[in-house]
Amino acid sequence: MHKGRLEAFSDGVIAIIITIMVLELKVPHGDSIEDLLQLAPVFLSYVLSFVYVGIYWNNHHHMLQAVQKVNGSILWANLNLLFWLSLFPFVTAWAGENHFTTLPVFFYGLVLFCAAISYYILTKVIIGHHGKDSAFAKSLGSDFKGKISLVFYLVGMALCFVSPWIGLVPYVLVSLIWFIPDKRFEKI
Amino acid sequence: MHKGRLEAFSDGVIAIIITIMVLELKVPHGDSIEDLLQLAPVFLSYVLSFVYVGIYWNNHHHMLQAVQKVNGSILWANLNLLFWLSLFPFVTAWAGENHFTTLPVFFYGLVLFCAAISYYILTKVIIGHHGKDSAFAKSLGSDFKGKISLVFYLVGMALCFVSPWIGLVPYVLVSLIWFIPDKRFEKI
Amino acid sequence: MHKGRLEAFSDGVIAIIITIMVLELKVPHGDSIEDLLQLAPVFLSYVLSFVYVGIYWNNHHHMLQAVQKVNGSILWANLNLLFWLSLFPFVTAWAGENHFTTLPVFFYGLVLFCAAISYYILTKVIIGHHGKDSAFAKSLGSDFKGKISLVFYLVGMALCFVSPWIGLVPYVLVSLIWFIPDKRFEKI
Amino acid sequence: MHKGRLEAFSDGVIAIIITIMVLELKVPHGDSIEDLLQLAPVFLSYVLSFVYVGIYWNNHHHMLQAVQKVNGSILWANLNLLFWLSLFPFVTAWAGENHFTTLPVFFYGLVLFCAAISYYILTKVIIGHHGKDSAFAKSLGSDFKGKISLVFYLVGMALCFVSPWIGLVPYVLVSLIWFIPDKRFEKI
Repeated sequence: MHKGRLEAFSDGVIAIIITIMVLELKVPHGDSIEDLLQLAPVFLSYVLSFVYVGIYWNNHHHMLQAVQKVNGSILWANLNLLFWLSLFPFVTAWAGENHFTTLPVFFYGLVLFCAAISYYILTKVIIGHHGKDSAFAKSLGSDFKGKISLVFYLVGMALCFVSPWIGLVPYVLVSLIWFIPDKRFEKI
Repeated sequence: MHKGRLEAFSDGVIAIIITIMVLELKVPHGDSIEDLLQLAPVFLSYVLSFVYVGIYWNNHHHMLQAVQKVNGSILWANLNLLFWLSLFPFVTAWAGENHFTTLPVFFYGLVLFCAAISYYILTKVIIGHHGKDSAFAKSLGSDFKGKISLVFYLVGMALCFVSPWIGLVPYVLVSLIWFIPDKRFEKI
Repeated sequence: MHKGRLEAFSDGVIAIIITIMVLELKVPHGDSIEDLLQLAPVFLSYVLSFVYVGIYWNNHHHMLQAVQKVNGSILWANLNLLFWLSLFPFVTAWAGENHFTTLPVFFYGLVLFCAAISYYILTKVIIGHHGKDSAFAKSLGSDFKGKISLVFYLVGMALCFVSPWIGLVPYVLVSLIWFIPDKRFEKI
Repeated sequence: MHKGRLEAFSDGVIAIIITIMVLELKVPHGDSIEDLLQLAPVFLSYVLSFVYVGIYWNNHHHMLQAVQKVNGSILWANLNLLFWLSLFPFVTAWAGENHFTTLPVFFYGLVLFCAAISYYILTKVIIGHHGKDSAFAKSLGSDFKGKISLVFYLVGMALCFVSPWIGLVPYVLVSLIWFIPDKRFEKI
C-alpha cells in the first residue's frame, strides 16, 4: 500500500484542527480595546496550540518522508495520533477561557502527553513494519527527544497543582525542543 | 477517468467529518472536574464515532486501491456514502447530549445502517464498472462481513426499544468486526 | 502552470462547503420524535443543497479532466465559482429554518443562478485559454444544458412570488437535468 | 524534501479559512428583506476577505511553482503566513459586526499587514535556501509591489483614526494591485 492517502488524510485533518481552533476566538460584540483584550488568554492559548500542531505537522511530514510502505496497523496508529490532536481545540479553548486555571492546564498537558505517546507508538509501529535495521529505524535512533518530552509533560502536569503558570513552563520547553524540525529523517 | 480526485475529495470530506465532531464537545464555562465530567457522554459518543469514521476511511482507502477506473455512477455512489457519513456528527451529538436515550440511539443506528448500505451499494457499482470477474470482485468475495453488519445494526435498532444501552452492544460489535482493515484488497 | 493545485484547492473548498452545511442541523435538546421532526425542513434543504454541491463537484471534476493548462484568469474564474458555492450553506439554512418562505427561497435561487453563471464564465475563460478549436471547446459544444438551467432558475425565482413551493420546482428540475455527470468531457 | 505536502497542507488550511468565514454570516431568524440587509456589512467584509485570501492563494500557488526544494525554515515561514491568514475570519467578522468602526478596521489592517510581512519573510527564506542567483530570486526581483503594499497598509491603519471608511481605501487599493496573479513566476 502507498502512503499517499495517509499523508493526504493526515494533512486534511491537521489543517482542519489548526484552523477550527480560531473559531474559539469568539468575535466580541463591542469594538473597544477592552473587548479585544478580554480575548488575550484565549489568543495566547491559540498561539501555543498553533505552534504545537505546527510542530506535529512538520515532524509528521519529515517522518513520513522516510516511510516506504504502510499497513493497517500504521493507519490505526496514525488515526490514534489524529484523535488526540483533534482534542487540542477543546483543551486549548478550555484553558484559554478559564484564564489558565489548574484543571484546564492539567488536561491540556494530559492531551499533549497522550499525543506524544501516540506519536511514539506510531514510530514503533512503523519500525515494526520496516524492520529494526531499516533506514527509518536508524534515522529515528534512540529517540531521546521523544522520551524526554514525555517526562517534561508529566512534570508540567504535576506542577499545575502548585501553580498552573509554572506547569505551563515545561510544556513550552517541549515546544522549544521540537521547534527545529526533525532533521533525523532529512538524510534519507 | 482517474480515481485521484475521488480519493482526494473523499479524504477531504471524511477529514472534516471526523474533525468537526469535536466541535460538539462544547467548552464548559467552569473549570472544575464536575464541569468536565458532564461532557463524558458526549465524549464517549465522539470516541465511538471517531472509530466508526476511522473504519470507513481505512476500508475506503483499502477498497479504492483495488479500483482502476471510475465513472459517473461511482462518483454518485461515493457521494451517497459521504452524505450518510456527514450525518454522523449530528446523531453523535444528539445521542451524547441526551445521555444515550432510546430515540437518539435508534437514529444513531439508522445512520450507521444507511452508511453501511451505501458502502454496499458502492461496492456493487464498482463491480458493475469493473466486471464480475475483475480482481476487485474476486477480492470482495461474498462480503459476509458487510452483510452480517447490516443484520447487527437492525438488531441494535430493535433492542433500543428494550434499552438503548443494550442497543449499543451490536453497534459496538460491528466496530470490533471491522477494526482490522479490510485485508481482502491488500493482495491486489 | 499545472492544474493540480487548482483541483486540490477546489476539492478542499467544496468538501468543506458540503460538510459544514450539516452544522446547520442544530442538535435538538429534547430526545422525542417531535424534536427531530422540527428539523425536517432544515434537513430537506440540506439534502437538496448536498445534491447541488455534489453536481457541481462531479461536473467540475469532469470538466477539469479536459483542461490542459491554467492561467491567472482561470484561477479567478474558479475562485468566483467557489465564492458563490460558499454561500450555499447560508441560503440553505435560511430557507430551511424559515420553512421555505418566499424571500429565502428567492435568494436560494439567486445564489444557484449566480453559481451557474460563474460556471458558465469559467467554461468561457477556459475556452479563451485553450482556443475555440480545442478539444475542450468541442466537448463543451453549445452548452444547451448550461443555458437552459439559467432560464429555469429565473423562472423559479419569479414563481417564488406566487408560491415558494412552486418556485422550488424549477430548481429541482435543474438538479435532475444535471444529475447525470457531464459525459461530454469523458471522451477526451 | 519535496514541496508536495507543503502545497497540499497550505491548500487545506487556506481552503478552510476561506470557507469558515462564511460561518460568520449568521442565519437571520426572520425572513424579511430587512433581516437580510442587516447582514450587509458582514457580507461586505466577507467579500473583501474572500478576495484577499484568494489573492494569497493565487500568489502562493504561483510562487510555489518556482520553488524546487523545501527545508524546515520554509515550513515554519509558511506556517507563520498561515497563522496570520487564520486570523482573517476573526477580524473580518469583528469589523463586519461592528459596521466598520475604528478599532476593528485598524486591527483588520494590522492582520493584513502581518500577513504581508509573513509573505515577505517567506520569500526571503526561500531565497536563502535557493540562492541569490536562483531563478526564484530573479523572478521575485526587487519585489516593489510587496514593499509598497506594506506602506499602504500602514497608511490605512493610520487613516482609521481619521475615519475607518477612509482607512479602508488603501486596503482595497492593495487588493486591486494584487488582483492580477503574480506573473513573475509564470516564466519559470
